Parts: sequence; C-alpha cells; structure tokens
Amino acid sequence: MWEQLFHRSSKPGLSLQGQIREMMVSAILTGVLTPGDPVPSSRELARHLGVGRITVVLAYQQLTEESFLVSHQRKGHFIHPDVLQGRTPQAPPAPDADGEESAVTPADWGQRLWLRPSEQRSIVKNENWQSFPYPFLYGQFDKDLFPTAAWRECCIKALSVLDIHQWAPDLITRDDDSLIHQIQTKILPRRGVWASPDEIIITVGAQHALYMVGDLLLRDDSSVGMEDPGYPDARNIFSSRTSQLKFLPVDGSGLPLSGELCDLDYLYVTPSHQCPTGVTMPLERRHALLNMAQEEDFILIEDDYESESSFDDQPIPALKSLDRSNRVIYIGSLSKSMAPGLRVGYIVAAPELLQELRALRRLMIRHPSTFIQRTLAMFISLGHYESQLRKLGAAQKERHAALVAAMAEHLPECRITPVRGGGSCWVQLPDHVSARELAVVAAEHGVLVEPGDIFFQSPVAPGNFVRLGYQSIPTSKITQGVQALAEAMRGIGRPAA
Amino acid sequence: MWEQLFHRSSKPGLSLQGQIREMMVSAILTGVLTPGDPVPSSRELARHLGVGRITVVLAYQQLTEESFLVSHQRKGHFIHPDVLQGRTPQAPPAPDADGEESAVTPADWGQRLWLRPSEQRSIVKNENWQSFPYPFLYGQFDKDLFPTAAWRECCIKALSVLDIHQWAPDLITRDDDSLIHQIQTKILPRRGVWASPDEIIITVGAQHALYMVGDLLLRDDSSVGMEDPGYPDARNIFSSRTSQLKFLPVDGSGLPLSGELCDLDYLYVTPSHQCPTGVTMPLERRHALLNMAQEEDFILIEDDYESESSFDDQPIPALKSLDRSNRVIYIGSLSKSMAPGLRVGYIVAAPELLQELRALRRLMIRHPSTFIQRTLAMFISLGHYESQLRKLGAAQKERHAALVAAMAEHLPECRITPVRGGGSCWVQLPDHVSARELAVVAAEHGVLVEPGDIFFQSPVAPGNFVRLGYQSIPTSKITQGVQALAEAMRGIGRPAA
Repeated sequence: MWEQLFHRSSKPGLSLQGQIREMMVSAILTGVLTPGDPVPSSRELARHLGVGRITVVLAYQQLTEESFLVSHQRKGHFIHPDVLQGRTPQAPPAPDADGEESAVTPADWGQRLWLRPSEQRSIVKNENWQSFPYPFLYGQFDKDLFPTAAWRECCIKALSVLDIHQWAPDLITRDDDSLIHQIQTKILPRRGVWASPDEIIITVGAQHALYMVGDLLLRDDSSVGMEDPGYPDARNIFSSRTSQLKFLPVDGSGLPLSGELCDLDYLYVTPSHQCPTGVTMPLERRHALLNMAQEEDFILIEDDYESESSFDDQPIPALKSLDRSNRVIYIGSLSKSMAPGLRVGYIVAAPELLQELRALRRLMIRHPSTFIQRTLAMFISLGHYESQLRKLGAAQKERHAALVAAMAEHLPECRITPVRGGGSCWVQLPDHVSARELAVVAAEHGVLVEPGDIFFQSPVAPGNFVRLGYQSIPTSKITQGVQALAEAMRGIGRPAA
Repeated sequence: MWEQLFHRSSKPGLSLQGQIREMMVSAILTGVLTPGDPVPSSRELARHLGVGRITVVLAYQQLTEESFLVSHQRKGHFIHPDVLQGRTPQAPPAPDADGEESAVTPADWGQRLWLRPSEQRSIVKNENWQSFPYPFLYGQFDKDLFPTAAWRECCIKALSVLDIHQWAPDLITRDDDSLIHQIQTKILPRRGVWASPDEIIITVGAQHALYMVGDLLLRDDSSVGMEDPGYPDARNIFSSRTSQLKFLPVDGSGLPLSGELCDLDYLYVTPSHQCPTGVTMPLERRHALLNMAQEEDFILIEDDYESESSFDDQPIPALKSLDRSNRVIYIGSLSKSMAPGLRVGYIVAAPELLQELRALRRLMIRHPSTFIQRTLAMFISLGHYESQLRKLGAAQKERHAALVAAMAEHLPECRITPVRGGGSCWVQLPDHVSARELAVVAAEHGVLVEPGDIFFQSPVAPGNFVRLGYQSIPTSKITQGVQALAEAMRGIGRPAA
C-alpha cells in the first residue's frame, strides 16, 4: 500500500521528504488512513519506499509538529486521533414538510445567463503548446529566459518580518507603496512618463486594466474607436458595454488620422506595437493624434503594448509622455517580459480618474496580491528587471532576424509586415491559402501558428493572415520551424488531383 | 555622496549587499550617476560605507553580470556606457499646425464618470492600525500567526524547473490544476462539499468572486435579497447593477424565512457566520431555506464566511453540501486565514455557470497569479494549511473567551451577540452611546473599534453597534484593550455639566 500511495503522489518538484509528507497528509484527509491508526516505523517505511531512514524521520517529525501524527514512546507513530476535528460530518438527506425526500428541480441556468462571454470570438491557444517543437506563439514565456534565481531571491526578501507586516494585511484600496515607487522612478521614465503616486494603480495584468477602464467609463451610448485588425479581448470587453464600436483600419504606421475619429468618446490604440501587425506609430502621428483628441475632446486609451521592445536604440515616447491635457489613460504590463502567469500590470491616469478606479478595484478584487507586488518591487529595485528586459530584447531582436531570413528563404511567397520591435510578425499568406487550414496542418508538422482572422472585427475577415510569435521559441529552432511550416503549406491549398 | 546615497536607500529587509545593489541601480536609473563614469574601488566604497570589502566585491560582481557596471582591468569599475540604452529620450514639445504650441484643454473627467464608486458607503479602516496597541479589527492579519517558514519553503518549491513550466505561461481561462485539485480533495470535503474540477474556479479573494457573480448574473431588474445588517461591499456591488435590492432583517440564527423571499431571483446569505453579527444558521433552517429556494426558484449565493472557524468540534455543513438542485453558488476564501494580502478565493457552482465565469474572468483579469496558486497548492498539499487553520482556530477561541470575560467585567452595560465561532463579536452599546463617537475617543486611548452603522442599509441606521474583531490582537492584550475601551466610553455620552 505505501509504495502505491507514495508513487501516486510523487511530484518531481518536491524533495523526497516533501513527497512523504504530501502522501501522508493526502491519505489522512481523503480518508485512506484513519485517525488513531499506527503508521509504519521510519525504518520500515524507508525500506518500503527505498529512501534513506533520516528522510522518513524528518518527515515524521514535521508531521508530528503539525499534529498530523502523534508519537507514543516505544510504540511508534500514530495518525493523530483529533486530526479530522473541525470537519463537517456527512450531510443527512433533506426532509421536506411531510418527512419525505422532496423532488429536486435543478436550477435552469440557461434563462439566467443573459451574458454569455464564452460565446465571444477570442484567441484560442493550444493548452499543450509546450509539447510542440515549434511554437510560434505570442504572449507566452520562454523557460530559458525566466530569471529563477533572482525571483527566488526576491521572494525570500519579501518574507522578512518587516516586509510581511507591510504586505500581509488587506490594503483595501491601496497598493504596495514600494511597487508604486519603483514604477514611478524606474519603469515610467523609460517611456518618458513622469507621474506622481496618485496617478498609478496596480492591476492583475494589462487585461484587468482594460476591463476596469471599460467598467468605469463606458455605458450603452459611449462611442469607442478601435483598430481593425485589433486586440480581440479589448473588442470583447468594449462590445459587452456599448454597441457604438467604430472599427478603424490601420496602415503601416498604425492608426491613421481620419474624420471618423471626430465623434468618438474614447479611442483604444496600441501605438508602440500595433496589435497584431506590430507596426510602430511615428512621433509626428502621435502628436497629431493628441492634437485631434484635444480638439475633438476624446480620451485615448493607450495600451503600451511591449513598449520596452525596440530593435532600435530609442523607442518612441509613449502618447502619455506627450499628453499635456491629461486625456491619455496609459496601460502597461510588468509580468509579460518574465512570466505572463505572474499577472501584474498598471494604469497611469489623471488623479480624479485614479481615485474612482481605486474604489472600483476595491469592490472588484480589493488589490492584486501584495506578496507579488512586494516581490516585484524588490526585483525592480535590485536591477533584475532592467537586466531581464535587456536579455529579452536581445533574444527578440535575434529571433526576429532569424525568422525574417528563414521566411525569405523558405516561404518567399509570404509577405511580412516590417516592424521595429516586439515579439511577433504579421504575415500575409498567398491568397489561396487559408490560415485556419494551415494552422491545423502545421500543428501536425509540430508547428503552432495563430490564424489572423480573429483580430478582424468582421467574422468574414481576410482568411490569409497569421501571427508568428517568437517569444517562446529559441533562435536555434526558428529555421527548422519555418521549413516545417513551408512543408505544411505545400501540403494544402492544392486542388485534389 | 556615497554615504548619503547608501543611507537613503537603506532598507532593513535587504542584506548589505542588496542595499549596495539597490543604491547603484537607483542612482544610475534616476540619473544621479552617469553612464561611463567610474565608481569607487571596492576597498574605497567599503571604507566609506563601513561594510566589509567582500560585500562590495560581491555586489559589484553581480552588477557587472547584469551590465550595470563594466570592469576594465587595472582601472576598476565603471557605469556601463550602454546602461540607459532603450530608454525614451525626453519628449520634445508638441507643435500644432502653425508650428506654435497649441493651447491645452484639460480633459473634463467629471462629466465622464457616470459611476462614482468612491462615493459609496464602505468600511473605512485606519491605514496605520498596526501602530495602535489594541486593534479590535476584523479581516486583518496577525504577524505572529503567519507561517513564514512554510510559505517560504513552498515559494522555493514552486520555483522548480518543472513547476515554472506549468505556472509561468498565460493560462488564459484555466487555473493551476494542482490548486483546483487541493481545493477539491482537501478544502471542500471539510465543508461536506464534493465538487468536480469543472465546478471550481479560483478568484482574487472572495471579493472578486462576488463581483464576478454580480457582473455575470445581475441586470437592471434582477431582484436580489440580502441580510440587514449585512456585508457592505456586497451591497455596493449589487446596488451598482440593480435597483431591486431587498433588505431582510436577521435574528439570532441568521436570516429567517419569510414571504419576502418568494419573489427573489437571488439571495446573498452568510450562513456560517452572519456578517456582521457572527451568528450561525442552524441545520434545520438551512434545509428549509434550500427547500424554499427550490420551490420559489431563486438562487442562493452562499458566502461561506470564515467557515473553518468553529468553537465547537463540528461546524454545520455548508448550504452547498445540502444542495441537490445545483442552485447554490458557493464562495470561499483561502488567504484570509493566513494573510489577506495574498488574495486567493474560489467559487464552486454548476458547470454551465462555471464555464461562463471562466470566460468572463478571462476578459477581466485572465486568472489570479499562478505563482501564488502553485505556492498555495504546495502549502495545502504539505499539510501546512490544515495546521494553520488549527493554530488560528485555537487562537480565536481563546481570544473570544478573553473578550467575552473582559466585556462582562468592564463593560457589563454592553450586549454581545452570542456566537459559535469566527473572528469578531457584534456588540450593542447602551442607547445613549454613539458608536462613531466612541470609535474616535477610543482611538485616542489606543483602541480601534469598527462602528456598526455601515453594515445597515439605511443611512439612519442604529448608531449604537460596534464590531470587535480579534484576529489581529493577541489574547494578552485583550483585557487591557477592553479596559481602555471602557475608559473611553466613560468619557463620552455624558451631558455637559
């Protein structure tokens, strides 16, 4: 039995001692082991499991300290008799007025779900993407670039007595001051933005920032402009709040100015790298856009999408840094360059707006985990964030060059939109090739690509675009990946013989 | 200069080496030190700062590895000349069409804020509560009960290569499987609830769970019942979505059944410990409530508020565990018993509802930080969570007894609502005492109490209730705290002589 239990709970991430503890706790709480029962002696269990005796002794010792086991001199260890105390007993069946079991009417959820977010069109990624040799995906992480040692160091530092005091309470509307300070002094100046602490709020990733802005500001009749193709999740957030969405085509310099912008209330825009084409809006257009926003009195929601990644030396200043009328709501991400799963972003906006965003966030989530906030603040303050950005930037530049070269050689019939930075290429396939079909066939060749139709608002979007991300694929695999993609493409789109 | 820089950035939580790195990075990024400039030799800086030379050597070594410094043989260390590369230059002023600076019209936020969450009535807690000797507050943490070593151990385990692979990506709609598994097998069975993984979703604390449920299910004409007095944040969430809120008085057994429940669509209820009175709903009433929900076809939103804390051995099963028609939406918290700042909660509900909650959460935040999720899963699987609950339960039982005894002795004129568990007492002051006035005077005596009027829906609520929490005050200070409170009370409420 013990070998089976042990085997079942074995987790490569845990030490042997941890695995023994995990097995015992699990077996006790799931009723496999009964309170009061004896457990094998440490010598016996060690032999059974093929581990050193001291490992078992140490595991038993901790389990005893935590009252899962109790030790009786000369008799050995037993499952603590009170270990299940405080647990709810099995519920008796519910009698109705007559003492009979009443018939059960299951709740009808269909009629109650007036909103069905699951039916919105959104980007779908293969859950098992890490098992594919050539994942050309955007927005994921690269295990070789994650700063494990530095992050561990910062976690441990965030667990000093003094730090715990500061982050462990419910901060209600506030954030961890140290993270706000780091963003203010180390992150925003990189983008030319100078903000005071009352203009900054932390979010659970950039997605959360967008949702809060939508929740607070949009109502049925708000007129909102967005790029087309554009970011599908923004489209989904805005479209569940207003029917007045205006889709604006983009060119090789991002969103062009036009009369269509005149009667907007809000404009959502991705100037540093347009989503999904990756193009950068030039400085002159940024100035013109700001002037127009001021003249026509609309608000700019700037998603400073991968702002830090530029193949040139000097990224163009954010709209927010040029804004003198406080009409730019700036959204940034901190976790994307390390591990998207960490989920940390932020908003910079006018203080009167920020105050309401804080009150809204209080109702919504209180605040993002302050343990993560404090750890990240340490990470930035010790310079790890800067060096992470440099490492990532160098990798992306190299990968981009490799991808462009490989595409030119193996898929010259595809057109790549030229970009100045970022983690993906926007690729136009020959007219007769369906991107969706290609994605399916490519996956069989071990290659993951993202069909581009989802980025267009119209369900009958151009079907021959793909986004090729290179954030999760090392340079060494790019050429092979493109070769495999070319092979996949040769296999489709031909009329049957 | 160096001593000043060093002193300014000194943080007790950091090692000396960390402090030197923090100082250098900060000085470089804020422009105090210029790229290419020499820095003092390690010997010199060590002397200046009064630290060991090896400390400086190691700090320089890491800064060099991360390209903040560059080392030239026999010349020493210099600020890396490219350290500021990739940063946005100072933005030039914006010219308008005539080449003149255009006049700036600041955005008018007043007219755009159609929702003003900051104006809602909510619980206000003193930010500096940790500096008061007698903080009788609810929902905060106790530094002596935080499991620092165990949490640190789990953070480190969550940073194994294999674990990083699993949590670091953007999981989009999913959660960390291991946390779902731990909740399913170790947490929910304590409450008599057996759920499958597709019935569980992780949230950023219980607050987030409530918000999502409100966002997904409520619309203008939804009729929602809630307890009065009740949880103000729930009231604020629901009232921003529907005007059909029905406030239902509670008795010594929680929410009583009445004809008023008949035409509800949803009922928000806190059966394990009613918020704020702390009373527990007996099993019979739970059965009756479920029967009524089924007959009248309304949905129960069960906030299983501090469910784990019972002074008796057996807590009463959750409504969810008695529910056979899938009409209970169950909300739980995981972080409250350790550190509210961690922010982890969860919802258990019917799979068809869960699917929409996942899609909604994707738009809202994607998912709560999976690093926190994985660390917490480790923490539960290793038995630390069980032992934390036991430790907390024992402390609360002891503190409750001390509080009741001290109140009987020093404030016999106050009436305490009897409770079976939980972290606070609901106290009725004599009629002539204003709880708000008492809170102000008590703070001058070092005592923090929460005035109870905020829990009532009516702004002209009874003014003589307070909530006395004992989650953040050790037993040893309770008697003194009550004495100080009694003294404060003697000082108010008397007509001027």
